[in-house]
Amino acid sequence: MQRETLLLNATDVKQNAPMAEVVPAIEDAFAAFQRGDAQMPAKSYIELPQYNGDFRSMPAYLDAGTWDAAGIKWVNVHTDNRDNFDLPTVLGTMIYSDPETAFPLAILDGRELTMQRTGAAAAVATDYLAVPDASSLGIVGAGVQSYTQLEAISQVRPIETVVVADRDDTRVAEFIEAFDTEFDVHAGSVSDAAGCDVLSTVTPVEDPIIPREAVGDHTHINAMGADAPGKHELADEILFDAMIIIDDHEQTTHSGEINVLWQANQLDESDINASIGEVVLNQHQGRDQKTGISVFDSTGLAIQDVATAHVVYEHACANGNGYNFDLLGFAEAD
Amino acid sequence: MQRETLLLNATDVKQNAPMAEVVPAIEDAFAAFQRGDAQMPAKSYIELPQYNGDFRSMPAYLDAGTWDAAGIKWVNVHTDNRDNFDLPTVLGTMIYSDPETAFPLAILDGRELTMQRTGAAAAVATDYLAVPDASSLGIVGAGVQSYTQLEAISQVRPIETVVVADRDDTRVAEFIEAFDTEFDVHAGSVSDAAGCDVLSTVTPVEDPIIPREAVGDHTHINAMGADAPGKHELADEILFDAMIIIDDHEQTTHSGEINVLWQANQLDESDINASIGEVVLNQHQGRDQKTGISVFDSTGLAIQDVATAHVVYEHACANGNGYNFDLLGFAEAD
Repeated sequence: MQRETLLLNATDVKQNAPMAEVVPAIEDAFAAFQRGDAQMPAKSYIELPQYNGDFRSMPAYLDAGTWDAAGIKWVNVHTDNRDNFDLPTVLGTMIYSDPETAFPLAILDGRELTMQRTGAAAAVATDYLAVPDASSLGIVGAGVQSYTQLEAISQVRPIETVVVADRDDTRVAEFIEAFDTEFDVHAGSVSDAAGCDVLSTVTPVEDPIIPREAVGDHTHINAMGADAPGKHELADEILFDAMIIIDDHEQTTHSGEINVLWQANQLDESDINASIGEVVLNQHQGRDQKTGISVFDSTGLAIQDVATAHVVYEHACANGNGYNFDLLGFAEAD
Repeated sequence: MQRETLLLNATDVKQNAPMAEVVPAIEDAFAAFQRGDAQMPAKSYIELPQYNGDFRSMPAYLDAGTWDAAGIKWVNVHTDNRDNFDLPTVLGTMIYSDPETAFPLAILDGRELTMQRTGAAAAVATDYLAVPDASSLGIVGAGVQSYTQLEAISQVRPIETVVVADRDDTRVAEFIEAFDTEFDVHAGSVSDAAGCDVLSTVTPVEDPIIPREAVGDHTHINAMGADAPGKHELADEILFDAMIIIDDHEQTTHSGEINVLWQANQLDESDINASIGEVVLNQHQGRDQKTGISVFDSTGLAIQDVATAHVVYEHACANGNGYNFDLLGFAEAD
């Protein structure tokens, strides 16, 4: 019987999140959600305008058939953190629990976890929606979330060439340095990136930065950046022309890539082709010969966090990583 | 700048939760909630009937004027835990965060925290609603939540005599042993307990166990046990006759002591005299010369957890207790 809680910091999470396993776990999570074998109460928000910040709670349970998992991620957006406190804008802490007893199996750094699961979600979508021989990946926005895009997507497609676009030359250089032994990775314009077989957009912009004409004929786009009302990265015409696959209806219409056009009544139900769960379960066909542009609108689901925590916890236990802590005080009480 | 997260297990929480400070912090929390200076999204539930269990997430923020605090408690009820897994039915983990930056200041054992804040809530109510010279306390139900009833209530009234009633003789003996150097504490019947100046009921029953005729003329009752639809501890007539003070309208009508009569339309708005926040802010008078029986219907609020975590964290830092952990991996990243 597990009696201690495993503490997994950012480094532990990263070391124990092999994309070859996280990507299938995220695919399982999308499938479980679509089948009705997941519970994901709506995110609840605490708004703290006096600190230019908020907190969000993301509880979830999922039953993937051969495994199940439960937990909650407590996450935030504090926009002054970087300038005023030398802290990341987005932090996070995850409690990963045994569904059968509620024992807190692990506490994980939620920021690293978010990076891993977000990359993996893009990979699942790419696997179903990109052309089979996709070998080029464009990345627009070279911030902290961009690295796992390449790490995950290269698991599902034979990526050789990577074009990275960002106004911040330092970020671009850091990204290139991180990957140039593995890939032909170079700096390019937004248009260069958007012409690739696969494009991942990972920016927080409110004015779209990807023009329609820059997008390749059969480019699959992972639209990862929008996470709040008013944010969107893609020109309206891209969404009008693309096959649109969403992760969750409530979240994407509220705060995903489609939220601005949705709220303006320029997109409606008929424009959403399917959820990623429907695609994974083959209830909706992914790419076929006639598909042109496809867009995966990813807002990030609590089940992704729980599924990734499951993989990380299992690996950390097997590898003897992390720090065991008697949170419940059983040793002292006995 | 705080760069590590303080891990506080059950023993640490208990040692750093002096009731003389927790009780006023809970009073501050009730006042902040009533003033509108708190945020407390509705509890969200994950139901796991296959495990006879559930999870609840309880996020909150409160601004008490001289301090503010934010956090989330992830708690559960798994009714098979005791018999099948030698684990408590109710566990819990609390993430306590800096509202200004969202940095996770501490992770606390939520089970011990719940005991402390629940006792303190009863003490706040007792302070406003019991007779000033109350010297006898009855406790019905000698389980894990009963101890902090006495510890907290004895902070606000000169308790000398304690009558404890429970069908389980071992529990009664353990309770007496814990307190008999400090109080005149002895076993008694439910009626003996109910005749005291103050009565705390701390049982999970669905059929009321406190009969109307056993209650003293001016007894103040802390009804702590009901936490789910269908549960109630007090005979209907007690609620019909008493001044009723609730902690939260939504929670008490759904799952508090009044929920059964409320759902049966035998109690309505006119029967609820006030919230504890109104009483604390003197928007509603507590006990006066004419008050007979009073009942505090306590379901437990997320702001209580946050307020108690605030006290515990401050004391643990001052006392050098707990274990510092670099959850965000800053040391390794630098």
